[in-house]
Amino acid sequence: MSDTDRLDPGSMARAFREARRRGMDVEPAVLFHDLGRMRARIGRIGAAFPPGALHTVAIKANPLVEVLRAAVDCGAGLEAASLEEVKLSLAAGCPPDRIVYDSPAKSRADIAEALRLGVRINADNLDELGRIDELVGHGGAASRIGLRINPQVGASSIALTSVADRRSKFGVPLEQADAVRAAFARYAWLAGLHVHVGSQGCALSQLIDGIGRVEALRQELRRAMGPLAAGTMDIGGGLPVAYRSTDRPPALEDYAAALRREVPTLFEEGTTLITEFGRWIQAGCGFAVSRVEYVKKDSAGRTAILHLGADFLLRRAYHPDDWHHDFMALDPEAEPKGGPLSPCTLGGPLCFGGDVLARELAFPELSPGDLVLIRDTGAYTLSMWSRHCSRGIPAVLGVDADDLRVLRERELPEDVVAFWSRGRGRP
Amino acid sequence: MSDTDRLDPGSMARAFREARRRGMDVEPAVLFHDLGRMRARIGRIGAAFPPGALHTVAIKANPLVEVLRAAVDCGAGLEAASLEEVKLSLAAGCPPDRIVYDSPAKSRADIAEALRLGVRINADNLDELGRIDELVGHGGAASRIGLRINPQVGASSIALTSVADRRSKFGVPLEQADAVRAAFARYAWLAGLHVHVGSQGCALSQLIDGIGRVEALRQELRRAMGPLAAGTMDIGGGLPVAYRSTDRPPALEDYAAALRREVPTLFEEGTTLITEFGRWIQAGCGFAVSRVEYVKKDSAGRTAILHLGADFLLRRAYHPDDWHHDFMALDPEAEPKGGPLSPCTLGGPLCFGGDVLARELAFPELSPGDLVLIRDTGAYTLSMWSRHCSRGIPAVLGVDADDLRVLRERELPEDVVAFWSRGRGRP
Ligand SMILES: Cc1ncc(COP(=O)(O)O)c(C=O)c1O
Ligand SMILES: Cc1ncc(COP(=O)(O)O)c(C=O)c1O
Repeated sequence: MSDTDRLDPGSMARAFREARRRGMDVEPAVLFHDLGRMRARIGRIGAAFPPGALHTVAIKANPLVEVLRAAVDCGAGLEAASLEEVKLSLAAGCPPDRIVYDSPAKSRADIAEALRLGVRINADNLDELGRIDELVGHGGAASRIGLRINPQVGASSIALTSVADRRSKFGVPLEQADAVRAAFARYAWLAGLHVHVGSQGCALSQLIDGIGRVEALRQELRRAMGPLAAGTMDIGGGLPVAYRSTDRPPALEDYAAALRREVPTLFEEGTTLITEFGRWIQAGCGFAVSRVEYVKKDSAGRTAILHLGADFLLRRAYHPDDWHHDFMALDPEAEPKGGPLSPCTLGGPLCFGGDVLARELAFPELSPGDLVLIRDTGAYTLSMWSRHCSRGIPAVLGVDADDLRVLRERELPEDVVAFWSRGRGRP
Repeated sequence: MSDTDRLDPGSMARAFREARRRGMDVEPAVLFHDLGRMRARIGRIGAAFPPGALHTVAIKANPLVEVLRAAVDCGAGLEAASLEEVKLSLAAGCPPDRIVYDSPAKSRADIAEALRLGVRINADNLDELGRIDELVGHGGAASRIGLRINPQVGASSIALTSVADRRSKFGVPLEQADAVRAAFARYAWLAGLHVHVGSQGCALSQLIDGIGRVEALRQELRRAMGPLAAGTMDIGGGLPVAYRSTDRPPALEDYAAALRREVPTLFEEGTTLITEFGRWIQAGCGFAVSRVEYVKKDSAGRTAILHLGADFLLRRAYHPDDWHHDFMALDPEAEPKGGPLSPCTLGGPLCFGGDVLARELAFPELSPGDLVLIRDTGAYTLSMWSRHCSRGIPAVLGVDADDLRVLRERELPEDVVAFWSRGRGRP
């Protein structure tokens, strides 16, 4: 089975029309996030894994407080890649024991604050364990602490999001298993292991292989130290999603079933299983609509200028071969455009040559005032927003069955001025 | 002559030590911008071109209001790539007739606002001219309006910042000169031409060739329409700078001299010459210092984890071959580190495999608490800040001879929470 489930273009266009009808801020561009779909995905994860597991959503995929709050309200935890993301989790109402703090750069102050708050921590390396040990006496009892292992299973097909090759900067490499054993012998508070094999571009077999290797080490620790040791296993995220109608990524349920088959101890009683999916939950929940501002024609072809570019789809602009999005042409009433297709370049609004979203796409005729729908923008797009040319971020609207609400208001020019000011607009 | 003038590492380290001595916010990382050097560069531009010229600084290179204010105070104008940047210009105290508004995506509302404010506008295309014409009756008299031409001189060595090849999304292609002639005949308010050939990676000969072609068209318009027509010529920016000690970019004075020789009409009386340098003014004014948080060693080598990564040096992380920075190792007292060199990878703080600033750099021994100085970070770094992993932006300090002052306060976790909140922290 593969997971080709994507939001239907008709319902996306309908959401846009409805938002405009209600006078919401959709011009010249607007972002949407489907909260119902997000809840459904979180529900699928819960159903596929054992009941006691903790499923966190990787904040870095989409850090909007309102999105996080909706995830927390339906029982998810949150995975934080920085202390700021820990604070975002708290602002979203997440209980500390459902927050997992992963970062390769935690300072002593960051660790002290995380211990004070009682959130879960995955240490990235052995030095960090030493720092935690210095602090853990002072009220760190509430934190459950794991250690990230790099399973060294090789790079994925997308070099930049590859984290489990030999050169990765993340975790303790499996080749240093002796040091890991020593750490568990030394630090009584060390509660488990953590692995995150890759993100998109990573084959199922590679995810499972990586998790299997780290789980084998955990089982070995438990055999050596007793059944209460290393009780937590955090298997990270990384499940790929479909960005094209021809993509056939694995279904979450198949992934869970394969893990149950290949790495059965993960599902045993006595194991606290943690997951950290980001993209699989969020990517397909998002879509964006931009007005076509200009259509330029010359002997080299035509270019439509949109109001979203390398600021929003940063990876797409910088590495178009690795990061695909589907684009759809809509008329000013947000109805699909038909007619003959011909090559069309979609340019963003930035004064920057690389600000191009698609080159020579087969596309219907376009005029200023038409709309372009961008699919699957729910993960690693808004969250990576680049301030290049300082354009305000469009409003983000939440779709929740038939309801629509503002998840983040449109940034106004005065917000951007405050952003770049000395005190950032604070009095 | 080539422009190899770069800030001296000794004085950069001194500024860091002084900032720390004064208790300024330098941990775990801090950014600096040398305002004295910026003023000197603006002064060199003024001296190399005729006295009546308007020299603007491209805001997109560095949009800090305090930086812009310092530029405006020494007589520069500002080039704005978005309406937000126009508002930044006004916040920095720039008079409207020294603001040049360039954007390929100006909406009708943007144009109306720019006309109301009386800033200069460079239209990107013929449709935009039509929109301006509809509005110009209503109080647009104070705006001086130009038209951007794509000289179609071919791509530069860095594909992504190339803007003058045949496929560029910017300006009216020179092949459509007839339409440009018709526009000047039709719109009495059209005051000049604009060209921006490229940014970094663009040979001097190519810059001059592109400007020469557009200037030839302008002269032809003047011959046809009289000496008061098309009086303004905006030659953009694009002069490259040295990022390596071996780089030999042209000196600004040689560039100006070559223009005077090859395109002499630019320097004639009756021409309002405008420039829009960004990188050449700002890149070398900036530097950054990060603490080394961890040093990880395994059989593949060593990796130092820093507090600046793909959030700050976005282009470096995504296209390391095109975008170089020099790194220097300092000890905890900010004194240069000596000793034998060996390969060292510099990793950023983000939970992202591509968050690497340098791979296997020949570098001295490093320990946590040491510092890494990053040179030439004054342009297209902070301005492109990506929110990936939501880390707070470090403080930016201004160096002004012996003085130091805060240009932007360090972002706190609560600022980041406000940023991702529904109303962005507004009451
Ligand atoms: C430690 C960690 N966990 C979880 C994730 C989420 O990965 P994905 O969005 O691919 O599920 C990431 C992504 O970078 C990560 O670094
Ligand atoms: C229209 C325009 N003018 C000026 C500049 C500044 O260029 P540089 O920083 O290379 O001088 C740019 C850069 O993208 C630009 O697009």
